[in-house]
Amino acid sequence: MRAMNFNAGPAALPLSALERAQRELVDVDGTGMSIMEHSHRGKTYEAVHNQAIALVRELLSVPDDYDVLLLQGGASQQFAMVPMNLLEAGKGADYVLTGSWSQKAYKEAKVLGKARVAATTEVDKKFTRIPKASEIEFDSAAAYAHITSNNTIFGTQWHAYPDTGKVPLVADMSSDIMFKPIDVAKFGLIYAGAQKNLGPSGVTLVLVKKELVAAGRKDIPVIFQYRTHAENNSLYNTPPTFGVYILRNVLEFVKQAGGLPAMEKHNREKAALLYGAIDARPDFYRCPVDKDSRSWMNVVFTLPTEELEAEFLAGAQKRKMVGLKGHRSVGGIRASIYNACQKEWIQALVDWMTEFQNGR
Amino acid sequence: MRAMNFNAGPAALPLSALERAQRELVDVDGTGMSIMEHSHRGKTYEAVHNQAIALVRELLSVPDDYDVLLLQGGASQQFAMVPMNLLEAGKGADYVLTGSWSQKAYKEAKVLGKARVAATTEVDKKFTRIPKASEIEFDSAAAYAHITSNNTIFGTQWHAYPDTGKVPLVADMSSDIMFKPIDVAKFGLIYAGAQKNLGPSGVTLVLVKKELVAAGRKDIPVIFQYRTHAENNSLYNTPPTFGVYILRNVLEFVKQAGGLPAMEKHNREKAALLYGAIDARPDFYRCPVDKDSRSWMNVVFTLPTEELEAEFLAGAQKRKMVGLKGHRSVGGIRASIYNACQKEWIQALVDWMTEFQNGR
Repeated sequence: MRAMNFNAGPAALPLSALERAQRELVDVDGTGMSIMEHSHRGKTYEAVHNQAIALVRELLSVPDDYDVLLLQGGASQQFAMVPMNLLEAGKGADYVLTGSWSQKAYKEAKVLGKARVAATTEVDKKFTRIPKASEIEFDSAAAYAHITSNNTIFGTQWHAYPDTGKVPLVADMSSDIMFKPIDVAKFGLIYAGAQKNLGPSGVTLVLVKKELVAAGRKDIPVIFQYRTHAENNSLYNTPPTFGVYILRNVLEFVKQAGGLPAMEKHNREKAALLYGAIDARPDFYRCPVDKDSRSWMNVVFTLPTEELEAEFLAGAQKRKMVGLKGHRSVGGIRASIYNACQKEWIQALVDWMTEFQNGR
Repeated sequence: MRAMNFNAGPAALPLSALERAQRELVDVDGTGMSIMEHSHRGKTYEAVHNQAIALVRELLSVPDDYDVLLLQGGASQQFAMVPMNLLEAGKGADYVLTGSWSQKAYKEAKVLGKARVAATTEVDKKFTRIPKASEIEFDSAAAYAHITSNNTIFGTQWHAYPDTGKVPLVADMSSDIMFKPIDVAKFGLIYAGAQKNLGPSGVTLVLVKKELVAAGRKDIPVIFQYRTHAENNSLYNTPPTFGVYILRNVLEFVKQAGGLPAMEKHNREKAALLYGAIDARPDFYRCPVDKDSRSWMNVVFTLPTEELEAEFLAGAQKRKMVGLKGHRSVGGIRASIYNACQKEWIQALVDWMTEFQNGR
């Protein structure tokens, strides 16, 4: 029986993507070899690689003046690569702090150059909301401005992206990329570790405006320059071939399911169902996040006591629901409900919430 | 039918490692989830992670004062990370150039600090041998000295590692790690992209002396400091979990096959068989590499004309032998015969060499 997987990432993947991988694991396309054993310069792998990139372009309607890169190292490596490439000497970079990940991104930028906090919603080490536009002070001379579009730990999400004028907006979309259609042209650079909505860990998607690639610094190691990967179709060095293969399988699932408009509908319904269940019992279940900052991807809530939370989690586990424990830094319950999380799983969770509360 | 895979990397993997992955792909350990869907902080993945590290320690007899790290980005990223961490201001680093990969490593180091060539065997853009000890001028004040233990493109391999005295020896062992037992204590740092002898692309193994980790630079991004990964058991950020899982499966195969002494015997026999076939027909098959520099991992040879080479390759392909074309920069034939390459495949290749030559 398949588990109802609410992990924050690595997270549930579409079953069809996994089953295809299983069928083809030892022998892909009748070649007598696993996709893992194929050369990254051979036609079998290159077809997969180019299909993955084409599906990213198609699903996100990526404009032609953007490069689509498949890299390694996760978002954590992008925390460093973004300033290495884009933070010119004498310029500064703006960071909006909405949680642990944006804090980490900001810290790496400070190692490399002048970074400043354009806004923060931190109160007592917690972040329960996204800042209002009026609270953010962007520097119009900044090299770029950085946001984290969705915050896995605190369960918040930007529902309208900030206007940074001529300053390129850089977004870490690791935990909500492809959850609905977005206007890529509003961003200078988008990066995302694959392990939530895209595929397995070990692949990082970067969408970057070609003019930023061209203007990027050249006094850094070749391997860390975006231009190196843009000029070589992400085949400068050996890519994580199996990870890209699974990414391709996942994107095929998204396309067959109706693309990002279908994902938006699916995710809106799931979030409404779960937040509805929380709000229906405000004395028992409580979401600490401001209503207009609530994430569609990571739904956090608490119960009246830690003992009840432990009991709730134990019962959920018995019902084959996994990954519901809140992040160790904040506690409580967290349901991560990315694209591959099925509505039936949310219904099962909501049923368990009702049953559990009715017993008290 | 399984192909006879002579790819230079990504390369053949042990069938048992792939078949286990296939069986468990959708459901590992009865959890109802793929290993790709498990949290990197959960006990199912952590067991795999720790087992992979323990097998590296056991198979290579890694001394206790070394850290074993599982990173991302391949050897190409280590070309930059080594000098970023180890090249202190005011110091230099020595590079022995024996091919394209060491040239790339040297170029990245030059971006970051003072790097010098301690020796090179380049003649007319080709490298057909490893330098003799007497030809190498090591700087006794260098931060480290760097070699590439095996050269995939030119088919050469160090059969005795140089003595660098108190200067830490750093080796890129991407293409021959675990081909036989080695004395890790002779090295300050060893790195290897997984995609030849260890597993799929997307995982990088680093063995590094703890004192070098501790002395490493702190003025670089946290994600690029070896200490970050050493202090967090390579779980600072999300590791490439599926790649580590396959690495674990491959290392289990190596252990069950008898460990590195068995790999040495197996590889010695394979190399002897193939070089024997080349040397038996010196007017027709020719290996351009000095005899004492010949690689056990990548066997390169030429035929009298390019036309004959094309014909030879076409016939090999018909016989289900793949990956035999030499690197585009040097041409000719190259058989990459890593640990997972079976002796029967070499015999089939040798049989084809005999048949092909007898027809002329």
